[in-house]
Amino acid sequence: MPMGEFDLIRRHFSRPVQRAVLGGGDDCALLAPTPGMQIAISTDTLVEGRHFLSTVRPERLGHKALAVNLSDLAACGAQPLAFTLALTLPRVDEPFLAAFADGLYALAQTHGIELIGGDTTAGPLAIGITVLGEVPPGLALRRSGARLGDDIWVSGELGDARLALEVFRGHAQVPGDALEALRMAMEQPTPRVALGMALRGVATSAIDLSDGLSGDIGHVLQASGVGARVAFDAIPRSERLRAQAMARQQQCLLAGGDDYELLFTAPPSQRQRVQAAGAQGGVRVTRIGRIESDAGLRVVSGQPDDDLAQATRIDTPRAFDHFASP
Amino acid sequence: MPMGEFDLIRRHFSRPVQRAVLGGGDDCALLAPTPGMQIAISTDTLVEGRHFLSTVRPERLGHKALAVNLSDLAACGAQPLAFTLALTLPRVDEPFLAAFADGLYALAQTHGIELIGGDTTAGPLAIGITVLGEVPPGLALRRSGARLGDDIWVSGELGDARLALEVFRGHAQVPGDALEALRMAMEQPTPRVALGMALRGVATSAIDLSDGLSGDIGHVLQASGVGARVAFDAIPRSERLRAQAMARQQQCLLAGGDDYELLFTAPPSQRQRVQAAGAQGGVRVTRIGRIESDAGLRVVSGQPDDDLAQATRIDTPRAFDHFASP
Repeated sequence: MPMGEFDLIRRHFSRPVQRAVLGGGDDCALLAPTPGMQIAISTDTLVEGRHFLSTVRPERLGHKALAVNLSDLAACGAQPLAFTLALTLPRVDEPFLAAFADGLYALAQTHGIELIGGDTTAGPLAIGITVLGEVPPGLALRRSGARLGDDIWVSGELGDARLALEVFRGHAQVPGDALEALRMAMEQPTPRVALGMALRGVATSAIDLSDGLSGDIGHVLQASGVGARVAFDAIPRSERLRAQAMARQQQCLLAGGDDYELLFTAPPSQRQRVQAAGAQGGVRVTRIGRIESDAGLRVVSGQPDDDLAQATRIDTPRAFDHFASP
Repeated sequence: MPMGEFDLIRRHFSRPVQRAVLGGGDDCALLAPTPGMQIAISTDTLVEGRHFLSTVRPERLGHKALAVNLSDLAACGAQPLAFTLALTLPRVDEPFLAAFADGLYALAQTHGIELIGGDTTAGPLAIGITVLGEVPPGLALRRSGARLGDDIWVSGELGDARLALEVFRGHAQVPGDALEALRMAMEQPTPRVALGMALRGVATSAIDLSDGLSGDIGHVLQASGVGARVAFDAIPRSERLRAQAMARQQQCLLAGGDDYELLFTAPPSQRQRVQAAGAQGGVRVTRIGRIESDAGLRVVSGQPDDDLAQATRIDTPRAFDHFASP
């Protein structure tokens, strides 16, 4: 791309900063974090055909590219501060850029954060975002804190994003009026930032669900050196997903991917505070199981307060690997 | 790429962190900056064929990808803290990855910084790095501080990286024993981090030279609302470049690209402190001109203490645009 086209692209991403000391346009951007806070950093790249379908509306893509990064901050209990954008574009498509920027800036504004730098290169469509947040020392949520006897919780409802993908692939069918809600789940996830912050000092561990519950909880179990039993019937799901066959529900709930809900653990003594954190975060939180000493994940039928040791085991489909093997 | 190959890639980039509170492997990395410091952030992506040639040795590519980002921190006077890596790879090539990681980690170690996160995707070779640093409030060097009467300085020697490119393109010739030194200039630049930090409170503005002196100084002049006169004969250059025809010297020095030296301004009263900063930074600093009130850049023959108003003007070739139009 000639230089002039890069200038044109840049114009779509140079809205003025207010909170940052210095935004894009200099060699560095400058941020003034609250003195004494730790800085949380996460970086994720979305690649066309692998992390999103080419049919996605550009404003939703702008939203999602930032949302998946904010979801990582949420899983650490960090307050978002700012982000950078590395954009790889096959060509200059002004309506695409304008809509993409609108979706990106709208979500940024919701969280009071600013785009403070980045660059553009020519190539297959990919969006790399690095997001910065702050968290008080010692209060960041990690994967490694789950303890024997902890409850296991998830936010929101799982599986709709994967169901949308299965519908697009022609593997599943839903009533026409359900499709748009499913698409929203896949294309415009809500990062649980307020919930993550409210869980500081309450949750013992947390992770965001991006690759499917069974795989992601595995990271928590491994980092914490524990095992888990999850009551399948308690996993929160939409009426749309509940109308699907049981095998489809298992696939979407356990190996779903792209949920961007939080999975976290907390001792039973904290149940009231967890519910309060959910209320503060504006999202339902649901208890789905408990941490056990035996390594590994056991998914069983029933509810978490049933005698789970006697319950029927459910096979866990393998983890979601995005669009690598449809 | 199957998941297993991503794990294999990750193994090359998961050396343990010591300074960061939490490294890669969780949802976020955590850093503890010095309380009260501002955070400087810069992000740059290198794309094969555009920012580097496919003939580059992988350890040098690892070095350069981090160096160009550290050079941005240097231009702000920031002390490097940590960096993230977003790697796009066409295939898994273990010898390439091992050598790339060696070059990357060697430079990181020189600056006492750590890789704290990132991700890998499949696609044409590209390396995206976001680097974080810290700087005391109010002391970051910016492009906008150049004032009428300031001296203009550069570090090191300019033009060798561009001369190397012209040799590779077959447009220029050098004696065989000069080629390796030129390649080093192009492929393994030294970011002037210590110089940038030593220039805090001394320089009035700074920028790193990545797209050629005439274009980059233009950013300073525009941001500062001033003009400049540069004495061409004072621009520091190697004996290798000095042996080239004058038109080639002008191209390489004024529109060179990939120099990764600092260009900065300071009042004449600060000349001793600038020289001391150079000594502290381990690099020669050279006075090449002065800031004037008339907008625009005037490059003239002679030395900066000559009566430059009477000197002969030299045309400035257009700015370097990497490998877009060889």
